[in-house]
Amino acid sequence: MTPDEFREAGHLLIDWIADYRESISEKPVKSQYPPGWVGQRLVPPSDQPHLVTDVIADLDDTIVPAMTHWQHPDFFAWFPANASLSSVLGDLVSTGLGGLGLSWEACPPLTEVEEHLCAWFCAELGLADPWRGSIQDTASMGVFLSMVAAREHASNMSMHGSGLAGVDRPLVVYAGSTANTSVKRAVLAAGFGADNLRIVPLDENQAVDVEAMASMVEADLAAGFKPTAVVATLGTTGVTAFDPVASIAELADRHQMWLHVDAAMAGAAALLPEMSSRFAGIELADSIGINPHKWLGTAFDCSLLFVNDPRRLTGVMSIDSDYIPSAANAEFGDEVTQYRDWSVALGRRFRAMKLWMHLRLDGLDAIRTRLRRDIENAQWLASRVESEPEWELVAPVRLQTVCVRHRPARTPADDLDAHTAAWAKCLNDSGRALVTPDVLDGSAMVRISIGAEPTERSDVERLWGNLKWAVTSGP
Amino acid sequence: MTPDEFREAGHLLIDWIADYRESISEKPVKSQYPPGWVGQRLVPPSDQPHLVTDVIADLDDTIVPAMTHWQHPDFFAWFPANASLSSVLGDLVSTGLGGLGLSWEACPPLTEVEEHLCAWFCAELGLADPWRGSIQDTASMGVFLSMVAAREHASNMSMHGSGLAGVDRPLVVYAGSTANTSVKRAVLAAGFGADNLRIVPLDENQAVDVEAMASMVEADLAAGFKPTAVVATLGTTGVTAFDPVASIAELADRHQMWLHVDAAMAGAAALLPEMSSRFAGIELADSIGINPHKWLGTAFDCSLLFVNDPRRLTGVMSIDSDYIPSAANAEFGDEVTQYRDWSVALGRRFRAMKLWMHLRLDGLDAIRTRLRRDIENAQWLASRVESEPEWELVAPVRLQTVCVRHRPARTPADDLDAHTAAWAKCLNDSGRALVTPDVLDGSAMVRISIGAEPTERSDVERLWGNLKWAVTSGP
Repeated sequence: MTPDEFREAGHLLIDWIADYRESISEKPVKSQYPPGWVGQRLVPPSDQPHLVTDVIADLDDTIVPAMTHWQHPDFFAWFPANASLSSVLGDLVSTGLGGLGLSWEACPPLTEVEEHLCAWFCAELGLADPWRGSIQDTASMGVFLSMVAAREHASNMSMHGSGLAGVDRPLVVYAGSTANTSVKRAVLAAGFGADNLRIVPLDENQAVDVEAMASMVEADLAAGFKPTAVVATLGTTGVTAFDPVASIAELADRHQMWLHVDAAMAGAAALLPEMSSRFAGIELADSIGINPHKWLGTAFDCSLLFVNDPRRLTGVMSIDSDYIPSAANAEFGDEVTQYRDWSVALGRRFRAMKLWMHLRLDGLDAIRTRLRRDIENAQWLASRVESEPEWELVAPVRLQTVCVRHRPARTPADDLDAHTAAWAKCLNDSGRALVTPDVLDGSAMVRISIGAEPTERSDVERLWGNLKWAVTSGP
Repeated sequence: MTPDEFREAGHLLIDWIADYRESISEKPVKSQYPPGWVGQRLVPPSDQPHLVTDVIADLDDTIVPAMTHWQHPDFFAWFPANASLSSVLGDLVSTGLGGLGLSWEACPPLTEVEEHLCAWFCAELGLADPWRGSIQDTASMGVFLSMVAAREHASNMSMHGSGLAGVDRPLVVYAGSTANTSVKRAVLAAGFGADNLRIVPLDENQAVDVEAMASMVEADLAAGFKPTAVVATLGTTGVTAFDPVASIAELADRHQMWLHVDAAMAGAAALLPEMSSRFAGIELADSIGINPHKWLGTAFDCSLLFVNDPRRLTGVMSIDSDYIPSAANAEFGDEVTQYRDWSVALGRRFRAMKLWMHLRLDGLDAIRTRLRRDIENAQWLASRVESEPEWELVAPVRLQTVCVRHRPARTPADDLDAHTAAWAKCLNDSGRALVTPDVLDGSAMVRISIGAEPTERSDVERLWGNLKWAVTSGP
């Protein structure tokens, strides 16, 4: 495609995206088609090129109807994500430039904008030198990298020898019972083994019980295990609980364990001064994950991984290569950041561009105002739920997530899970709104995650009506 | 940013990208500024939004001047990548839709376009059922996932027990001495340990010596080790050598080792019927990595990972979660693909969109013509190099990479490395062209990777002139 063809097709597609976002509220939130519907309508690649208008027709006829619309004002599922049109433009610039970050010199602005933004976030988060940050694809990758770094530091860099098989004391990782599933996947992928992942019980705040964790660590020490890492969560996936990071950090420090803080979703709130107490103690961690691609609204994928003393990560992940020696390091020294040493992947997208353009084109005031809007909307919905006798709030509303059950007077307790599943399905299938059926303490509940970019108070009011409609309209 | 603001800014940026690509040949290929130059010019995010025209001014004044221009016709460094403007548009659509692939139901078209394209590639590559594919960020991730899967199958799924530390026989991985650095990083991150990575010597074709590998396997068995995985490379990074996959597969099969084939760069040539013999035997592998984001020209990141019997990967990487139960799997069965079970990351970009739009808007004929153009250009350059007595070709030109040395009659052999480094630096610093200094058999050489999208024969002719200029103009 020539630049001139790109120009013509690009203008069409910019308008197409704007039209899509403008008309999104007319569509059912959830995909209305069964598995295979899209696939069977797709035409295989052909020798001759297709017209962009033909491709747009396919987008209209096949792709959009089958989407679950994350940017819909009635989207209350999973978490808000991936939204801002300013970051869409940043991503376009990144892809249009066509650079690739194999090393600093392969794409200097890629490295330096990433460093610049990470330094800005460090300052906002109160993370002083030697804290540094990077942009990863997901928080799952961040926790995985942290677990590998923890494993190596606890095993005297066993990777340079006979690996984990040569370690005499089993290495143990601790995490709360409601930590994200990425923790288990990271621990398993890094080779620790499920037997060496300790699931720590929760306290009355649905947060990690630090005393229980301390007892588990003592028991492991007595049994000859080596406590290696802890994952603390600020804003759990289910009910947005906040683990007591400062107390956990003290325990981790006492036993030289690596502390990773997972604030993937809730971390956006760290930009609100009034929320700073929720993040107290994060500077005591060894690594922290925060996803701008969630509530902050930057286009996916954009996950910040901060490391206290980056050499503890780069010393584990760096590779030597004739193929990509760094002339910059040879000439300017180790101060030149090589982000290839921060990840499994060697090549990097210019991900910082979308975050940079998001923050600059929207401005921080607008972003903070939107976050506060969502928190207030969640408080409003919680107050409605609490005002009706048949509804209950199953967890405190700590940020923008509202977890509810509807408990009709006539329903026996053992039918409540079926009732909950039925009305959630009824609501979701209707296309009027999308919420997440979830489980809390073994019982069904529904999570309502407020914060899609276009979601205003009036949309939350309509949701409240739809919730009440769904509980009376199910099978 | 509202859709209307997006419309206005988007049109400006589409034109800006088209202008950038049109004027790229006027710029020096390589960044002309030292580390820190970009960072010190950046303004931190502010409360009030910036105008898009201000951001474009910063792109012009700070970002573009510091870029190393991968899409420049004089770019011959590393590998061709990340180019096609049609895939830039596909990526724009993906980001504009703002969907996120947590599961099939979270974004059905994301999963189904990915499956559709992977099935098409499988057919092109001769990979029959049960082969399936996925799109990963990089080939590094593909080799890492393959190593984790291999580790688990060789250790009777040790991850569900006490992990690698509980394995009684050390697990061993084999790879040629010129395998990509990602292999070592994957083996180390997966916990095998460097002592358990066997570096296999090469034969006269610069490919893995299968007899030597077989002897190493026998020696390991005799010593109580467990041969676990082999990485074969089709198109090595340095000299585009092709390991004998069929013979390696036979050895792997005999010892129940996992065979991963890394065809990250060269795999694009598998779309050329006349190149099919180079890929003979790949169907005997357990996994294969091919990067459309390299020579094929799809925007980064787009790396295909194919697995022969995907349950051998998903059985290792899948996670259970209350938070993301699949209603689709409950209703329609396990045939509904959940790509979250194919990776470390839980969330996924709609990466298939850029590959789909690339193939459709460019058409296969144009892509194949471009690949053949690059192969012919490499042959032409090789013939020039061979025609001059002071120049030598240090490896056969198997695809589009030309590896050279300049050996002036008056230079003593032990000064040759310094001479090579000097003229490569002279050429690269001049901004006239960008090539990769590399090492072959312990001696410096220069790799010329032909295949940036705009690079025509006339550009390669100019390169040849610049090469001859550089060797006489160095310090």
